[in-house]
Amino acid sequence: MRVLLVGEAAEHEADLRPHLDPAVEVVALPAEAATTDAHDDAIDVDDVVVSLRLRRNGAPLPPFRLLHVPGAGLDGIDLDALDPRTTVANVYEHEIPIAEFVLARLLEWEIRAADMQAAFGPDTWARTYRRRAEHGELHGRSLGIAGYGRIGRAIAARAAAFGMRVVAVDDHAAGHDHAQVLPTSRLPDVAAGADRFVVACPLTDDTRGMVDAALLDRMPSDAVLVNVSRAEIVDEDALWHALRHNSIGGAILDVWYRYPSPADPTPAPAAHPFWELPHAWCTPHSSAWTRSLARRRYAVIADNVERLASGRPLRNTVRTGVEADADRACSRRST
Amino acid sequence: MRVLLVGEAAEHEADLRPHLDPAVEVVALPAEAATTDAHDDAIDVDDVVVSLRLRRNGAPLPPFRLLHVPGAGLDGIDLDALDPRTTVANVYEHEIPIAEFVLARLLEWEIRAADMQAAFGPDTWARTYRRRAEHGELHGRSLGIAGYGRIGRAIAARAAAFGMRVVAVDDHAAGHDHAQVLPTSRLPDVAAGADRFVVACPLTDDTRGMVDAALLDRMPSDAVLVNVSRAEIVDEDALWHALRHNSIGGAILDVWYRYPSPADPTPAPAAHPFWELPHAWCTPHSSAWTRSLARRRYAVIADNVERLASGRPLRNTVRTGVEADADRACSRRST
Repeated sequence: MRVLLVGEAAEHEADLRPHLDPAVEVVALPAEAATTDAHDDAIDVDDVVVSLRLRRNGAPLPPFRLLHVPGAGLDGIDLDALDPRTTVANVYEHEIPIAEFVLARLLEWEIRAADMQAAFGPDTWARTYRRRAEHGELHGRSLGIAGYGRIGRAIAARAAAFGMRVVAVDDHAAGHDHAQVLPTSRLPDVAAGADRFVVACPLTDDTRGMVDAALLDRMPSDAVLVNVSRAEIVDEDALWHALRHNSIGGAILDVWYRYPSPADPTPAPAAHPFWELPHAWCTPHSSAWTRSLARRRYAVIADNVERLASGRPLRNTVRTGVEADADRACSRRST
Repeated sequence: MRVLLVGEAAEHEADLRPHLDPAVEVVALPAEAATTDAHDDAIDVDDVVVSLRLRRNGAPLPPFRLLHVPGAGLDGIDLDALDPRTTVANVYEHEIPIAEFVLARLLEWEIRAADMQAAFGPDTWARTYRRRAEHGELHGRSLGIAGYGRIGRAIAARAAAFGMRVVAVDDHAAGHDHAQVLPTSRLPDVAAGADRFVVACPLTDDTRGMVDAALLDRMPSDAVLVNVSRAEIVDEDALWHALRHNSIGGAILDVWYRYPSPADPTPAPAAHPFWELPHAWCTPHSSAWTRSLARRRYAVIADNVERLASGRPLRNTVRTGVEADADRACSRRST
C-alpha cells in the first residue's frame, strides 16, 4: 500500500509523513492525474489516493483501495466514476477555526476593542479614562444557529461557555449539552428570539434563500446575522434592504454571492456594496483558513491510512468499497 | 430599613429598584455624605448604605446595618471608622466582561479579522480570495494565568471551551475543571510553557514586579502577555525591553502605570510609548466597563437587601457586624 498525493495534496507531504509508518511509501502525482488517465499506470489496486478532485468526464477510474478527500466537500469527485472497490473518506476539522472566527467577531461586535486601541495614546489617555464608553457583553445574549452539524455544535459549545443561551434548528441532529435543538419549522420563532443568528447549515435546495425578507423581519432590531456557510442561504436583496433600513443591527459576512471563475475572474463579491456599510463586517471567505487546518486534516488522513493497514474501521467514511465490505463481513464471521 | 445611595451610586437607582420589594424606600444622598458628617442625621441604625467611598479622616461613622460597596475594591472605605454593628458586603460580576475582553483580544491576535475587513472590497476580492493568508487558532495553544480567583477562573472556563490547555498559578485556589493549578513557586515553569500568559492576580507586595525581566525571558518568543489586572505587576522597563527586542511576540495591555489624578491630571499612561509598537495592543482600562456590569451588580445588591430583610445569609460578606452576629446566634438558639 502506497499513498498517492495528487495535485495540491502533494504540497502537504510534510503534514502527512510524520504521522505515518516509515515503511509506507508516499508518492506525489501532478494535478492532471485527477482529470486525465495519463498517470493511471501509477495507481495500484492497493493504493490510497489523496485528492480534492477526481473526475474523468464519465470515464471509469482504475480500482484502488481508498480515496481520501483532504477536505469536507465532495463536489470535486465523480463518485460514479470510482471503481466499486474504492472506499471514500473525507476530513473536517474546519469547525474549529470557523467557531473561533464566529466568536471572535461576535465578541468584537460587543467590545469594539480595535476602536479603543486606535484612539489610545498619551494625548487621549486621561480624557478617555475619565469618560470610558461602556461596551456590550455576550453573557446572557441569545444565539440562534441554523444547522446543528459539526460547525453549529462547535459554535454552540464555545458560545455556551460565554453564558449565551443557544437555540439551534436542525431536523436531523439530536439534542446536545450546549443548545436546545428544534425542528427547522421553528426557524421563525428562533429568529424572533435571537440577538445573534449564525447560518451554519449546508446550501441545499431547501436552504437556498431560507433567510429571506420575512425571516429577517422577525429578528430583533439589534440582531446581528452571521454567515459562515454559503451566501445563497441568505437572500441578497432582502439582506441589503434589512441593513439599509436598519431593521437588523448588522451582519458579519464571510461568504459571498460571486466567486472568481475562469469565465469571470474578477467579479464583485455581491451585487450590493455591503462592504460600504459600517454595520456589515465583510471578510474574504477566510474563517476556516488557518495554518493548523491542513496539519490537523493530514493527521486524520494518516490515522486512516494506519487504520486501513491494520484492518481497523476508518473515520469519516463517505462510502465503503465492496471488497472492504466483504473483508469486514469475513472478519465478522471469524470472530 | 431604607437603602441610601451615596454619590455615584444614586445614578443606579433604576438598576436597583426593579429588584426590590416596593415597600423598601430608596434615598439618594450627595457624594459629600461619604466624606463629611453633614448627612449623618439621614442615616438610621437599620439602614443599608450603598457607596464606593466612606471615610471621615478617622472620625467614627454613625451605626447602620449594612454597607454595600457597589464594586469589588474596598480602597475607598475606612473600615476602622465603621460602627462595629455595620456589616460590609461587596460585589464582583466584572470577571464576566474581563474574561470576554481577554478572549476577544486573544482570538483577534490569531485571526486579524479587522485587517481582512479593512482590505475587503470589489477591487481586492478575487485576488484576496485566491491568496488568502492563513491565520492562527487558539485551539491547542497553552494559556498560563497568574492568579486563579474569580477573573482567572472565568478566563480559564472560556479558554478551555476553545481547546486551550490552561495552567494557573495560585497559592490559595483549589484545582478546577478548567485548569491545572500550581503553586506560585512554579511561575517560571508556567511562563516557559505558555503561548499566552494572562496577569489576573491582585497587586500586592508579593506581586509587584512579579513579571520581571527573568520571567519574560523564559516565555516563548511568540508568547503574548495580557495584563488586565494592575500595570505594576509587570515591570515596565523589562516589558518595554522584551517588546523592543522581540523576545516575546507581543502584549495586550489594558492597565497602566500612571492614571489621571488631581496632582497630575493628564499623565502619559507609561514612561515608554508602548502604544507606538504594532505588537502592543493598548486600551484604556476598559475590559470590565460594560453596560451590563452595573445592572448585574445592583441586582446582587438588591438580592442582599432582600436577604437582609428576610434574615437569610448575605452574599459576598466582607465583615459581619457584631449585632448581626448576635442576631444570628439568637436565631440559631431558637431553631
